[in-house]
Amino acid sequence: MNAPTYELYYWPGIQGRGEFVRLALEDAGAPYVDVARLPAAKHGGVAAMQKLMKSHALEPFAPPFLRSGDVVIAQVANILFYLGPRLGLVPDDEASRLGAHQLQLTITDLVAEVHDTHHPISIELYYEDQKPEALRRSQAFLAERIPKFLGYFERVLDRHGGRHLLGGAMSYVDLSMFQVIEGLRYAFPHAMAAFAPRIPKLVALHDRVAERPRIAAYLASDRRIPFNEDGVFRHYPELDPAPSKRR
Amino acid sequence: MNAPTYELYYWPGIQGRGEFVRLALEDAGAPYVDVARLPAAKHGGVAAMQKLMKSHALEPFAPPFLRSGDVVIAQVANILFYLGPRLGLVPDDEASRLGAHQLQLTITDLVAEVHDTHHPISIELYYEDQKPEALRRSQAFLAERIPKFLGYFERVLDRHGGRHLLGGAMSYVDLSMFQVIEGLRYAFPHAMAAFAPRIPKLVALHDRVAERPRIAAYLASDRRIPFNEDGVFRHYPELDPAPSKRR
Repeated sequence: MNAPTYELYYWPGIQGRGEFVRLALEDAGAPYVDVARLPAAKHGGVAAMQKLMKSHALEPFAPPFLRSGDVVIAQVANILFYLGPRLGLVPDDEASRLGAHQLQLTITDLVAEVHDTHHPISIELYYEDQKPEALRRSQAFLAERIPKFLGYFERVLDRHGGRHLLGGAMSYVDLSMFQVIEGLRYAFPHAMAAFAPRIPKLVALHDRVAERPRIAAYLASDRRIPFNEDGVFRHYPELDPAPSKRR
Repeated sequence: MNAPTYELYYWPGIQGRGEFVRLALEDAGAPYVDVARLPAAKHGGVAAMQKLMKSHALEPFAPPFLRSGDVVIAQVANILFYLGPRLGLVPDDEASRLGAHQLQLTITDLVAEVHDTHHPISIELYYEDQKPEALRRSQAFLAERIPKFLGYFERVLDRHGGRHLLGGAMSYVDLSMFQVIEGLRYAFPHAMAAFAPRIPKLVALHDRVAERPRIAAYLASDRRIPFNEDGVFRHYPELDPAPSKRR
């Protein structure tokens, strides 16, 4: 029996929210196609993505979404909930699956707040059209929300033995936490360098995930799109001042 | 065999995010205790809620959370995913459960954006400390996001026959959509009155949910906390100008 080939649909030029799904598929060595990154001649591209999106019985509100046979699933945390047991990235019992999902949904909340640091007014406007508000929101995010969210995850990790967020074994939540740390370091290098001593276990988890053979190979490949200023994690130096310039 | 008594933990003075769980429990006629609304003498109150929250192996990041026997589950959509089949509020097959959850997570995204109309900078600040930004965000929300989100749900409803968002039968998603429409009408009465002709099927769904006997009884009871300016849906007249005063 062949493993199914998963089809991932997401914007082709960014890591964005799709990256949390890519990391799970890559770590599991699962066969998948990143459809919108293929040329139109191979039935790929954004137009193919939007066509499937609009025609499906339960239309996704937005990418990413995953097709697996007849099933089309949207919302990152929902996709990971579905993939988790199939990829061996979460224990199969209900309590573990709900616990992992609870943590993933909290990561979803954090990622939405990261997005709003550069788009506090409207996603229909450019960053350049909401810069004063972005600065104010970023200051609050770094002062209050980073400590609250990452302090929470550090506590969960500590309480579960320090190796894995879910306890006994690696799960897709650990992979997502790698991406959160990696993304926050890209977006806010000064703030994260200053905060790192308060989250030693999360930093160690990040490093262990980066060394997993399939993840290391993925990160070194051209399948890993570099961070850029179109994704969720964006680096605008004015939102992350050097320590000497901080108020 | 007795049905389990569910324990809901949420801030006692607001509908907030807990209301989506209350509506499911009420519609199903499920036995539940709204723990933080009980007096401390009955093991209730906010202190009891926070004590359980901090002591649980998988600490919730924030209320609401649900206790069912030994299980403690946080995140509204996760709670509804768990309760759905147990309360008969979603079909038991995987495809239906994932589809309902996908819709519920999109409602979660909408509710987060509603929250940010009055708190676009920081939840640690009062609304009064972020009024100019709140006005700007609300204008964008009403002009762009309400049409995008509600237009999407109207389309899903239409494609599924017009009676239920998930298709064949009432689900917890329909109950949550009632609350979204009710809350948006409270917060933005002018804007919603103007927008209503574009979402006739959602409005009719809202009205049918309000007439369900257990929901009608609940809404008329003192268990239903009135909307107020501490919850997610807040009415600040300056954020919802009368049509004649709109730009």
